[in-house]
Amino acid sequence: MRNLTLLTDLYQLTMLNGYFEKNIHEDVVVFDMFFRKNACNSGYTIVCGIEQFVEYINNIHFSEEDLKYLKSLNLFSDNFLTFLKDFKFTGDIYAVEEGTIMFPNEPILTVKAPLYQAQLIETALLTIVNFQSLIATKASRVCFAAQDDPVFEFGLRRAQGPDAGTYGARAAMIGGCNATANVLAGKLFDIPVVGTQAHSWIQKFDTELDAFKAYADIYPDKCLLLVDTYNVLNSGLPNAIKVFKDLREKGHKPMGIRLDSGDLQYLSKKCSKELNKEGFTDISITASNDLDEYAITALKAEGATINSWGVGTKLITSSDSPSLGGVYKLAASFNDNDEIEPKIKLSEDPEKINNPGYKKVVRIYNEYGKSEADLIMLHDESIDDSKPLTIFHPLYTWKSKTFEKYTIKELHKPLFINGVCKHKSKPVMQIREYVKNELDTLWDEYRRLSNPQTYKVDLSHELWSLKTTMIDSKKFL
Amino acid sequence: MRNLTLLTDLYQLTMLNGYFEKNIHEDVVVFDMFFRKNACNSGYTIVCGIEQFVEYINNIHFSEEDLKYLKSLNLFSDNFLTFLKDFKFTGDIYAVEEGTIMFPNEPILTVKAPLYQAQLIETALLTIVNFQSLIATKASRVCFAAQDDPVFEFGLRRAQGPDAGTYGARAAMIGGCNATANVLAGKLFDIPVVGTQAHSWIQKFDTELDAFKAYADIYPDKCLLLVDTYNVLNSGLPNAIKVFKDLREKGHKPMGIRLDSGDLQYLSKKCSKELNKEGFTDISITASNDLDEYAITALKAEGATINSWGVGTKLITSSDSPSLGGVYKLAASFNDNDEIEPKIKLSEDPEKINNPGYKKVVRIYNEYGKSEADLIMLHDESIDDSKPLTIFHPLYTWKSKTFEKYTIKELHKPLFINGVCKHKSKPVMQIREYVKNELDTLWDEYRRLSNPQTYKVDLSHELWSLKTTMIDSKKFL
Repeated sequence: MRNLTLLTDLYQLTMLNGYFEKNIHEDVVVFDMFFRKNACNSGYTIVCGIEQFVEYINNIHFSEEDLKYLKSLNLFSDNFLTFLKDFKFTGDIYAVEEGTIMFPNEPILTVKAPLYQAQLIETALLTIVNFQSLIATKASRVCFAAQDDPVFEFGLRRAQGPDAGTYGARAAMIGGCNATANVLAGKLFDIPVVGTQAHSWIQKFDTELDAFKAYADIYPDKCLLLVDTYNVLNSGLPNAIKVFKDLREKGHKPMGIRLDSGDLQYLSKKCSKELNKEGFTDISITASNDLDEYAITALKAEGATINSWGVGTKLITSSDSPSLGGVYKLAASFNDNDEIEPKIKLSEDPEKINNPGYKKVVRIYNEYGKSEADLIMLHDESIDDSKPLTIFHPLYTWKSKTFEKYTIKELHKPLFINGVCKHKSKPVMQIREYVKNELDTLWDEYRRLSNPQTYKVDLSHELWSLKTTMIDSKKFL
Repeated sequence: MRNLTLLTDLYQLTMLNGYFEKNIHEDVVVFDMFFRKNACNSGYTIVCGIEQFVEYINNIHFSEEDLKYLKSLNLFSDNFLTFLKDFKFTGDIYAVEEGTIMFPNEPILTVKAPLYQAQLIETALLTIVNFQSLIATKASRVCFAAQDDPVFEFGLRRAQGPDAGTYGARAAMIGGCNATANVLAGKLFDIPVVGTQAHSWIQKFDTELDAFKAYADIYPDKCLLLVDTYNVLNSGLPNAIKVFKDLREKGHKPMGIRLDSGDLQYLSKKCSKELNKEGFTDISITASNDLDEYAITALKAEGATINSWGVGTKLITSSDSPSLGGVYKLAASFNDNDEIEPKIKLSEDPEKINNPGYKKVVRIYNEYGKSEADLIMLHDESIDDSKPLTIFHPLYTWKSKTFEKYTIKELHKPLFINGVCKHKSKPVMQIREYVKNELDTLWDEYRRLSNPQTYKVDLSHELWSLKTTMIDSKKFL
């Protein structure tokens, strides 16, 4: 396992050194990770990467080499560097289960730990969870557009480096893809891999037909042919049909064709027609050129006969929205008497004011199992679910809603308690199933690709009062 | 070092297995890596990531675990898997020096190797070089906008995973940034790191002034204060000035302030005015909120008094153009008599037709050392630079240009010869200097941020004839 302990911003370490010098480094604090806008302009965000964050925490340690490097920066006292030698995470971390659907401003992960520990882990947490959540959400959108067709993740060569291709493939599977082309991801995460041949295979043989025949010879039961190396309709398709007929005579079932360029709508229809004419009615037509959820929606609307989608660059980079802006903010500090002091950061932009205090999130489901709203509450609050529950908008407080028949679920689960890992790893394919169930709890209006409805995230009355009071008290700073 | 041998698309391995079964895997072939459009809508692209590609090649090997995994896929013959056990790269690779400026359709890297070797390495090559070249190019644009101001790379938390943050920081330095916040990148690549304090530092203390004082106390000579936690003009700035005065009395020189929100133009001017009034005229005003080359250009045009730029998300993801579409195409194959057979891939889109043959690239400089044009030539061609040189546009052939006073440089250098590494690693800061010199050879019209002029990339007459003949011969396929 890689040592990512130095995968952090330098200011975390200058602050740690400062806390240490001021002897406040052991103060227990609470930090929340949350995002202010959903990934990919979606109506929701799939939280992903929790497994890799847990690995990171389990593996945190400053090696001799790390400490030597830090010393070379001439920023830190020797006492502090000695102190770092025994660094170990000893706090509590609560988080939603990997694959959970979350919404803006809700804590998706909360750390309660000594200040120096909670501060150090900020950057790696954000790097890991922001990216995988982004790609899982993007993948869920692409799969939504593809309806029930299989979607394959093909983006490795355009990914933002090896990790992005590999953890991106993991996240894409969790978001709903059916397989990846990335072999390393297949091995590391036990997820299905797919792949047949590239243009170079076709070019290497004297003729396209020779290339197709050679492929069919070696992979008679997995024969999917790339038909656009020279000319789809005049060369690729007729050659493929010849080879498919041979295969059929020998008792094999051809898999299909792949289109990687040209007008996919026109070509897919033409190809379907010719293939049907020859009796190849139950065959895959895979397309794979610059696709995303919008291109797939348009192709489907135009009647393209593509039934399998290879999605590369635009999925693995979430190209139209290539980052999720998850942040990590101080929400509370415990004083010497173990009393909690909530913390707030003001901002001219009201949306940037954080929710103070040590908190949790409760989801409210209706009698049909659909999610109706989330409520952010203080950690020690509870809901009496035998009574009706009224929630209200935190800014437009006259907007309220009362639930009569409802169930609630607390979303945070312990990842670490007193530094002991409580997380149980799950296979990626199992998290993928969980995501499917999560998405089923959402009304369609939250899944719409453009201009989705905004899901309700309200504050408990107690939290709302705390926040309002704190803002008022700092008003004239 | 990580084993990235399986960092490849599955189709590379299904093809390898196919080549092996057809006994053509040892045929020597030539592949080119090139891109069709510059990174970030620029007039140029900085090639970056060569060092990591060399590490990858030097480390290629299929471990027992890798082979066990591949066997589990039930796609490959046992003979083939045994063959992979001894996989070793034995071919030639030529590439431009890391940091070289390149243009569309030029081979930036050419592999001449047995087919199975040349094919396997495609995906990792593209993943590594596409991403770093993208970020180096983006960084050069941001630095161009910042003119002579220092630019700091602050993007780790929004990077597409740990590698993207770390290799992205490397590439950003090569592209011209002055330092990064990423400590791991600092350690791995020996590049300067920067960082002071976050909002959480300010919030942890009872008052902002306490927080500033504590920081100044620990870092009296590196005191840069974040002034926007509560309110810049009513709180952050006056408190910073108090602390700066104290520091000055004690003989220290305050570093400056950082603005991370709000209207940066307005706030920077207001802050400058107040700081100047107190005699702090030579002080850094750093801004760091959602910046890129366009925002910096606008702020400078509006007279913002920012003189140091922290650039995060939009640099580390190249957010408006988050991938470079580098490709890797078969260009030639050697037959049993060691004669070269050029290869071409046709396409309905003329821009997608590759340049066939084993090639090299020559750059033409004028008498003032400015780059005037590049010429793609066959590998064994040469230019008699004692005579005038005429080049012509490959499509609009009537557009030609003759150089009288010129010098030429061949851009490809050997990375590997017969599998032996010829590459000499260079420190990142040295590559950064090389990039500066490279950029100085470009006329300003190629560096313009929007709608840059198109740099001339022509084909030698011999290559042009070869290509034209090959296209004609396949016209009616």
